[in-house]
Amino acid sequence: MARPLEGLGLDLASLAAAYAGGTTPADVVDEVFARIEACGDPGIFISLADRAALRAAAEALGATPDGRALWGVPVAVKDNIDVAGLETTAACPAFAYRAAEDAVAVSRLKAAGALIVGKTNLDQFATGLVGLRTPYPVPLNAVDPSLVPGGSSSGSAVAVAKGLVAFALGTDTAGSGRVPAGLNNIVGLKPTVGAIPTKGVVPACKSLDCVSVFALSVDDAYAAFSAMAGFEPSDPFSRDVRTAPVGLAPPKFRVGVPTPQTRSFGGDPAAEAAYEATLADVAALGGEIVELDFEPFFAVAGLLYSGPFVAERQEAIRGFIETNADDIHPVTRQIIEGARRFDAGHAFGGMYELAAMRRALSGPLGSVDCLLVPTYPRPRTVAEVSAHPVGLNSEFGAYTNFVNLMDLCALAVPGRPRPDGLPAGVTLIGAAGADARLAAIGERLHAMGETPLGALGLPAPAAPDRAPAPAPDETAIVVVG
Amino acid sequence: MARPLEGLGLDLASLAAAYAGGTTPADVVDEVFARIEACGDPGIFISLADRAALRAAAEALGATPDGRALWGVPVAVKDNIDVAGLETTAACPAFAYRAAEDAVAVSRLKAAGALIVGKTNLDQFATGLVGLRTPYPVPLNAVDPSLVPGGSSSGSAVAVAKGLVAFALGTDTAGSGRVPAGLNNIVGLKPTVGAIPTKGVVPACKSLDCVSVFALSVDDAYAAFSAMAGFEPSDPFSRDVRTAPVGLAPPKFRVGVPTPQTRSFGGDPAAEAAYEATLADVAALGGEIVELDFEPFFAVAGLLYSGPFVAERQEAIRGFIETNADDIHPVTRQIIEGARRFDAGHAFGGMYELAAMRRALSGPLGSVDCLLVPTYPRPRTVAEVSAHPVGLNSEFGAYTNFVNLMDLCALAVPGRPRPDGLPAGVTLIGAAGADARLAAIGERLHAMGETPLGALGLPAPAAPDRAPAPAPDETAIVVVG
Repeated sequence: MARPLEGLGLDLASLAAAYAGGTTPADVVDEVFARIEACGDPGIFISLADRAALRAAAEALGATPDGRALWGVPVAVKDNIDVAGLETTAACPAFAYRAAEDAVAVSRLKAAGALIVGKTNLDQFATGLVGLRTPYPVPLNAVDPSLVPGGSSSGSAVAVAKGLVAFALGTDTAGSGRVPAGLNNIVGLKPTVGAIPTKGVVPACKSLDCVSVFALSVDDAYAAFSAMAGFEPSDPFSRDVRTAPVGLAPPKFRVGVPTPQTRSFGGDPAAEAAYEATLADVAALGGEIVELDFEPFFAVAGLLYSGPFVAERQEAIRGFIETNADDIHPVTRQIIEGARRFDAGHAFGGMYELAAMRRALSGPLGSVDCLLVPTYPRPRTVAEVSAHPVGLNSEFGAYTNFVNLMDLCALAVPGRPRPDGLPAGVTLIGAAGADARLAAIGERLHAMGETPLGALGLPAPAAPDRAPAPAPDETAIVVVG
Repeated sequence: MARPLEGLGLDLASLAAAYAGGTTPADVVDEVFARIEACGDPGIFISLADRAALRAAAEALGATPDGRALWGVPVAVKDNIDVAGLETTAACPAFAYRAAEDAVAVSRLKAAGALIVGKTNLDQFATGLVGLRTPYPVPLNAVDPSLVPGGSSSGSAVAVAKGLVAFALGTDTAGSGRVPAGLNNIVGLKPTVGAIPTKGVVPACKSLDCVSVFALSVDDAYAAFSAMAGFEPSDPFSRDVRTAPVGLAPPKFRVGVPTPQTRSFGGDPAAEAAYEATLADVAALGGEIVELDFEPFFAVAGLLYSGPFVAERQEAIRGFIETNADDIHPVTRQIIEGARRFDAGHAFGGMYELAAMRRALSGPLGSVDCLLVPTYPRPRTVAEVSAHPVGLNSEFGAYTNFVNLMDLCALAVPGRPRPDGLPAGVTLIGAAGADARLAAIGERLHAMGETPLGALGLPAPAAPDRAPAPAPDETAIVVVG
């Protein structure tokens, strides 16, 4: 069958242009299904929307854009987020249930005109950063299939990197929305904790979980974020976070980076060189580099798996693990059952430690406008991670694990490329509520990086023209609900 | 020995008048020691300051007031709060240590000119609301020695009610700063969580503990609170809470009270009648009574002892309880060891429940300016509580247990008296940061109540003239640190 849209980029600007030229959402649905089939990777999606039903929904949008931000935009959703009528598996077939209602994030996407194409693969129960901990086929890394795709939001990242959808939802508790973005040369937006309601998401660590966005550009990711963010009274973890429009990057800003002694690239000089090249880009953008001792951040991260917060994962599936322990992926089970060594007093003790660490780090964090870290120390192959499933998973989380515990937001973008073509991402990290500020800096950084987009060979998007950003003293305010 | 100050009230106004008339702080120290001896209750203080040293400190203040808010004011401190050079026992001799430094609250009192007279008895490890759970003699209730003194801050409340000191510090996690105030006809100010730093306090539930104040009047309690409140960076639980001056009570305000179906007086009609008489006073002050279903508040309280938050008490003395379980009061031990049934997942589950309950109650709480509840359902005798040490302790906490978990502040004041002369207190409860608002209402309510002060037979203080309070839309803001 002829595919007139075969060459169409699914970024929002290209889609809008196609719709302005007479393409219909039903055409795009057909093209998306064709691409998924042509792609031939059975690991990306766990389930797909009923094609006829999705075509009908596309036709119901009407023939011409109606002004909604995501009109006719095809989206993939990680399979730990409820989409009404589809199964939610969390990559554990024995756990699966058919969702009666959309998660709040999904219902907001639909309200903005988006079309949900299917549910994507993940590290089971969103526990992992590698993408291998699934009973389904492992999605192939879009840049280099010998590499792990990253996780836990593996399928969502690969779907975007391969141009199958415009953007995809992930979740991010410990880095699941950033590491796969970095490993597939795309953008991963991990918002302020609570900015997007998590009602309708299978919890990993309920107090830390975020819905995240994978997209080809910062601009697209932020558009999706804006459509989903906003206070939801029925979600106890929802917060009233201001979603300011993305402005100009400030002409001068202070960027905290790990001291050389506290940088780790797993012994990979190419990763180190790529990070340093990106730091030069940041300086060219007006960023003043401020070296910070990262040991205290790594100590925070220790609370997540080595400390009592792993018990949040146990609590999330307490009933299930009691009856179905053998249905759980062996590595996942080993990690979650590690929570058994902690009693309730330990959990409170962990919270006291975290409070003290947050207080101690408020000084260094207050001295800079954002942090810039490698998204992960180095890429790893499927073979390597299979041989060291826990140790190399931990390696991936070095620069991501502390972020949600510290109540920070983050934005992963492709950085300067490595000579060997392997993916080399960086992540901007900011205070709660600084999502727009990170986007303003991140889109410029992405444009400078000259990394081809995803697996598509397209150039990185140019930074759009913007109105000036708010002055530094107008930093967004977070109201804790 | 002649005691020229025998008749001196130790409220701040009387003290100031005496100092203006030539009395010296050393004279007051002598009088305080004389009163403690004359009082003849060995249960009030666990230890006293060295008299010569305190006299020297008093003399070092100079002969005339220097403008400091608490110049020459004699104060008692609950014995779970560090005073440098004195032992901190937490009412557990095997746990005792000599404090090297003052708690932040104590050092701020000293900086304001206060003189620390001694350390007061308490329910061991601040676990209890009755005052009986101590290996030391039980302090006698100042109003009626057949009644329990209330706890956990038993000695501090009795010391104030008997006129031994101007005010006394307590701590309050579940009601320990309110129940003893109610049972001894005095004022108990339980500030916003984090408003007074808790650094240097033996933790009960570290995330909920407050330093509290017992005084003869709201005005005095607020003066002590103001001297101690303020952000302390080295205390991870300290918050930047605005301590506004006490203004006029607003001419009209909405007061949430339990519906008749959710009021409990333990079958004591006199307690019920006294509460209703105080409600009439509130209405006369301009308060519009709004009946609220209190079952959800009682459900919050269930998390504290029946739920996983009891594990905070376990964590606070983890090392000690492992080695010294037999040195712990049997009732206290039974309660704290109850935490053993909770694992770390349960602790997180309890926090999820609490988050949901807080969200659900934000509507009812937002519909009123404050709550007004009985401080406890009914007074109980030592004999009754000795026979039912856990059940009647729980009864005392009906209207206090939920407050800190909900991040509310509270002010206990004597209410309308009962015909039988037993103590009948009420407690105002407000949002975090509303301490000044509660004080403005509370001092008027106290003045109307016509309850004799403490055990002194003095009339309740008249409400002072005040500048107008801020308008309702200028409610104090709490910044979460």
